[in-house]
Amino acid sequence: MIDLSTTHAFYGTAEQAGIRTPVQRYSVFMTFDFTGTTATDLQVLLARWSAAIAQLMAGKTVGQVEPSRDDAVGGDTGEALDLDPAALTVTVGLGPGLFTDALGLSAQKPTLLRELELSTATLQDAFTGGDLSVQACADDPQVAYHAVRALARMGKDAGTAATRWTVMGFGRAAAGAGQSTPRNLMGFKDGTRNIFTEDDYDAFVRVTDGPDWTHEGTYQVVRKIQMHIENWDTDRIGDQNEVFGRHKVTGAPLTGTAEFDTPDFAATDSSGAPVIPARSHVRLAAPENNGGVKILRRGYNYTDGINQYGFLDGGLLFVSYQNDPAAFETLQARLGASDRLNDYITHVGSGIFFVPGAPASGTFLASGLFS
Amino acid sequence: MIDLSTTHAFYGTAEQAGIRTPVQRYSVFMTFDFTGTTATDLQVLLARWSAAIAQLMAGKTVGQVEPSRDDAVGGDTGEALDLDPAALTVTVGLGPGLFTDALGLSAQKPTLLRELELSTATLQDAFTGGDLSVQACADDPQVAYHAVRALARMGKDAGTAATRWTVMGFGRAAAGAGQSTPRNLMGFKDGTRNIFTEDDYDAFVRVTDGPDWTHEGTYQVVRKIQMHIENWDTDRIGDQNEVFGRHKVTGAPLTGTAEFDTPDFAATDSSGAPVIPARSHVRLAAPENNGGVKILRRGYNYTDGINQYGFLDGGLLFVSYQNDPAAFETLQARLGASDRLNDYITHVGSGIFFVPGAPASGTFLASGLFS
Repeated sequence: MIDLSTTHAFYGTAEQAGIRTPVQRYSVFMTFDFTGTTATDLQVLLARWSAAIAQLMAGKTVGQVEPSRDDAVGGDTGEALDLDPAALTVTVGLGPGLFTDALGLSAQKPTLLRELELSTATLQDAFTGGDLSVQACADDPQVAYHAVRALARMGKDAGTAATRWTVMGFGRAAAGAGQSTPRNLMGFKDGTRNIFTEDDYDAFVRVTDGPDWTHEGTYQVVRKIQMHIENWDTDRIGDQNEVFGRHKVTGAPLTGTAEFDTPDFAATDSSGAPVIPARSHVRLAAPENNGGVKILRRGYNYTDGINQYGFLDGGLLFVSYQNDPAAFETLQARLGASDRLNDYITHVGSGIFFVPGAPASGTFLASGLFS
Repeated sequence: MIDLSTTHAFYGTAEQAGIRTPVQRYSVFMTFDFTGTTATDLQVLLARWSAAIAQLMAGKTVGQVEPSRDDAVGGDTGEALDLDPAALTVTVGLGPGLFTDALGLSAQKPTLLRELELSTATLQDAFTGGDLSVQACADDPQVAYHAVRALARMGKDAGTAATRWTVMGFGRAAAGAGQSTPRNLMGFKDGTRNIFTEDDYDAFVRVTDGPDWTHEGTYQVVRKIQMHIENWDTDRIGDQNEVFGRHKVTGAPLTGTAEFDTPDFAATDSSGAPVIPARSHVRLAAPENNGGVKILRRGYNYTDGINQYGFLDGGLLFVSYQNDPAAFETLQARLGASDRLNDYITHVGSGIFFVPGAPASGTFLASGLFS
């Protein structure tokens, strides 16, 4: 049963909704180029977006669908008019390109915000970058789409934000606290070892230093990861399990019998080889093998239909939150170099954004940036 | 509330499920080229697909996700393993290209099956045609995607069906009997005057003559209709209402006050002009103005993200069922010539298929075609 009447608060929380909120079933992620010329343009955009997001998350429209004057243009496009709020959250991020001298914002740059220092060889311009990110998650994709469309329309009308790239996630691929673990399009459970506790959130996600306006914020890393699912589907099950280091059905590590068993990376088989292979995904990504580093994942499955070769084109919109982008870089550098999963995936898109904390009631997103 | 435990029957109904079944929230539509060489190849494909569809609609896998032998390949890709059946229906259609002398099937061709006689000027090869159609509808898009992926994999493994084009529908855009009317991406209700009664189904949808194996079948017309939603969003509300001939919020005809009021096409305003304009969508498409013709619609909203010009790219996957493709042609020829909606839409994809009746238990789809 899905209860579509759920709403979440936009104002007055510490971090923005959509980071630790129980992961909704669907998402629309979109990035924008900032096309304004002054910090005030950005301030006005964020103020207008904030007011709109508050309405949308409450299940309301962003203006009249059918104004009383025939010559007026509707403030809301209307396609979500009869739909429930569906637990909508809209989470906004700010890219490195905003914190420039030209905009007078360089001194206010979030301390650790910068372009990712990772290979860009496989990235496509069509899915990379952006000055602003909007992540709309909901239990009804039409509600999420309507929200992003509303913000895109406002940015276009103001001439200050132009759509750059987007991915629609049709199924969640990460577990939140208290949620069962969903599966990615490779059929494996994803997010078994995600961040679930307050202590971990404080240690690995929440930003508490740097410019005042950045406190309670976090860094958002986005990767569009194409999965070569038709190739994957021809791989024998023993190999698939070794690629992940887990059993496909139960999600248990190869050294265990249940999903949440702690992987035993020291265990060896009768020949002396590690039971969880050296290049398996779970071993390379494990906090135990990365100085204790954890990131909060919030991914969604996507499909782009059929590619030019006639193959099913799908994958994972990987979204992670962390208080230091280096955490992701460390993990990804290691995975990129050795992970056997690389035979079946390609990182085609990328973005990094600073996600400011939630606004206090009566204010707007990142208002402290402008004061 | 959405109850994801719902299942529908595949065997033993008159028409296939997914035609009159209460419209589920999401769909994946895919067409295939037949790449076999004999009627037996087609027969085997349809038999295997039928067995798989029966499993899938019951919420089961199509084989083992994790076979006991490590060197075996999984029969099921696994991504729907922990998901509910979600009211899945999978509906299969057969295109005109199958009923050839080469395959020995020309004498068994459904009486009225042929390519649509409509302009192809705006159609794109990438979204047009196909020898087989698969329409998977479910209240969980991952369940629908898994089903289509499973059938695509079987067709590829057998070398008899190759993927051609696909559209993922993320929100329903047509009402079934007893359902509230959903909205398309133009924000208007769609399907207010759909076919809801048994009498109308008999009169306009159910096939009862022609070759025996075609009885209880129907013809499926599919159109991928791109909507220029950013242009639409700049149109004043009075004009939008005149384009449709209805009020946006209520869905009432311009001559009425409630959604299901019968449009009064004779009504004129003080200047003598028709209240429902001559080129409005509702007037041109109305049965009253088309010799009483009705079609059963089952459309879904879709988005293809952002196009090369930076505009939001979305629209309607229009799917209709009728016992004579001429019914659609008549309506579409009239709409194509005059509909003011044409300023805001482009038909970019098209397909026509004969959808055979449901198989009796123990048989398979279109089994009578081969006997």
